[in-house]
Amino acid sequence: MIGAETRLVAMIGFPIAQVKSPANFNRHFDTQNDDRAMIAMELTPEAVKDFIATARGWTNLDGFVVTIPHKGAVAELVDEMSPRARFLGAVNAVRRDPDGRLTGDMTDGTGFVEALKQRHFSVAGKSALVVGAGGAGSAISLALADEGLSHLVLRDLDGNRAGALAAKLRLAYGSCTVETGIPAEGAFDLVVNCSPMGMSPGDALPVSENLLDQMPAGSLAADVVTSPEITPFLEAARKRGLAIQTGAEMAAAQMIQLGQAMGIFSAENSNA
Amino acid sequence: MIGAETRLVAMIGFPIAQVKSPANFNRHFDTQNDDRAMIAMELTPEAVKDFIATARGWTNLDGFVVTIPHKGAVAELVDEMSPRARFLGAVNAVRRDPDGRLTGDMTDGTGFVEALKQRHFSVAGKSALVVGAGGAGSAISLALADEGLSHLVLRDLDGNRAGALAAKLRLAYGSCTVETGIPAEGAFDLVVNCSPMGMSPGDALPVSENLLDQMPAGSLAADVVTSPEITPFLEAARKRGLAIQTGAEMAAAQMIQLGQAMGIFSAENSNA
Repeated sequence: MIGAETRLVAMIGFPIAQVKSPANFNRHFDTQNDDRAMIAMELTPEAVKDFIATARGWTNLDGFVVTIPHKGAVAELVDEMSPRARFLGAVNAVRRDPDGRLTGDMTDGTGFVEALKQRHFSVAGKSALVVGAGGAGSAISLALADEGLSHLVLRDLDGNRAGALAAKLRLAYGSCTVETGIPAEGAFDLVVNCSPMGMSPGDALPVSENLLDQMPAGSLAADVVTSPEITPFLEAARKRGLAIQTGAEMAAAQMIQLGQAMGIFSAENSNA
Repeated sequence: MIGAETRLVAMIGFPIAQVKSPANFNRHFDTQNDDRAMIAMELTPEAVKDFIATARGWTNLDGFVVTIPHKGAVAELVDEMSPRARFLGAVNAVRRDPDGRLTGDMTDGTGFVEALKQRHFSVAGKSALVVGAGGAGSAISLALADEGLSHLVLRDLDGNRAGALAAKLRLAYGSCTVETGIPAEGAFDLVVNCSPMGMSPGDALPVSENLLDQMPAGSLAADVVTSPEITPFLEAARKRGLAIQTGAEMAAAQMIQLGQAMGIFSAENSNA
């Protein structure tokens, strides 16, 4: 139970009631007998700048997680950023130093890769299709390239968005061919849905049935959507005997990295 | 345990680790199976203005309690104040309406009077000495005058502070004689320590032993200091067989009023 000496971390977003991190972190703090709590703060976009200023002078706050739609705004306001957060222009976790200095990181992509590693799925030398080049798609594409992916196809309804991300990735990772704007067909080792398709009943699949049929043995279909846990896309992949990875698995794998980015889990304590 | 749907209230102060309200409120929410939590936020004075701006856009926050040293600053920043908060120029509880509008109240004095009522000590027609004309002393003096006190003596090391408060009280309550700057001797029905004397070991008593000796049967010695719970002043009064009221009793009586001021306890639900 929260008292006056409880150290705090926060999660900011709008809306906020759907997020899983506060319950996950608070369960963890509880099992560790750690007098900490994560609070979920539903903040309007207009209040983000004031929140950042408040956080500088909020001395029992150690850091905060950032979710939609504030990731880009927070990147503009913190004092320092990790290279990956700078690359993406987005921040999903901030550490507050005792002097009020704020350092941002972006763990959406590395959390996804961490979940892959936990199932012993190696990305090096493989091909992937990423559907959706927004915040999650950008972060995951960067993390996949960073893990040695050979071939990446990006698909987004907004061709300019996919093109801009592809250009940045090509510049940074010469070893990975990046394509956009082509019919997304082929025998991909990994297909990741980073679009909202599948959140609402009746949504079309993010990829064609035909594409799923072409996925080779040992390939993986992954989704970042957390609700429903098994999206129609994952269900269709599972029916074909493909391995699947849910958004919830990604979120769970990401928790350690969020805690490290906020400075409340040490790097050694990685099974926190 | 806090989750993403938990409604929040906050308590702001600097420092904050010593306050009791978060533990008291959270125990209450827990026994009521109410998915609410109070968080204790240690905020520097420089961050108060930003916090107020943040609170307007913090949509799952219902209100907040304000403690030292922010009570005056918050009074300057809210949209509306109760008459007693306006009189005192200080706010210790703020309600946040769904549109972000902030309304301040000041329950330090009425909380004290509530504790008196719980022990069936009536103020009407009586005499009181209040030591310390700061935030707590001002609020308690106002509440005592409002309850029909006949005679009030105010004592403060800062004579101007006591004088200014006395002038305001005389203007508002013609029925109560208010004196300052005189030797505080006499047979008071109620003596209240609203100074910090008694918080540190070796502090002098806030009143003379001689004054305690003069207190009549049925009189009461009260302290707003919460730590130690039994101050040397209360101990000296108890040795003389006088009734005493602790700072903790005042704080407990005030909890309902804080919840009402934040709009999370209804007026009917007064034994919340």
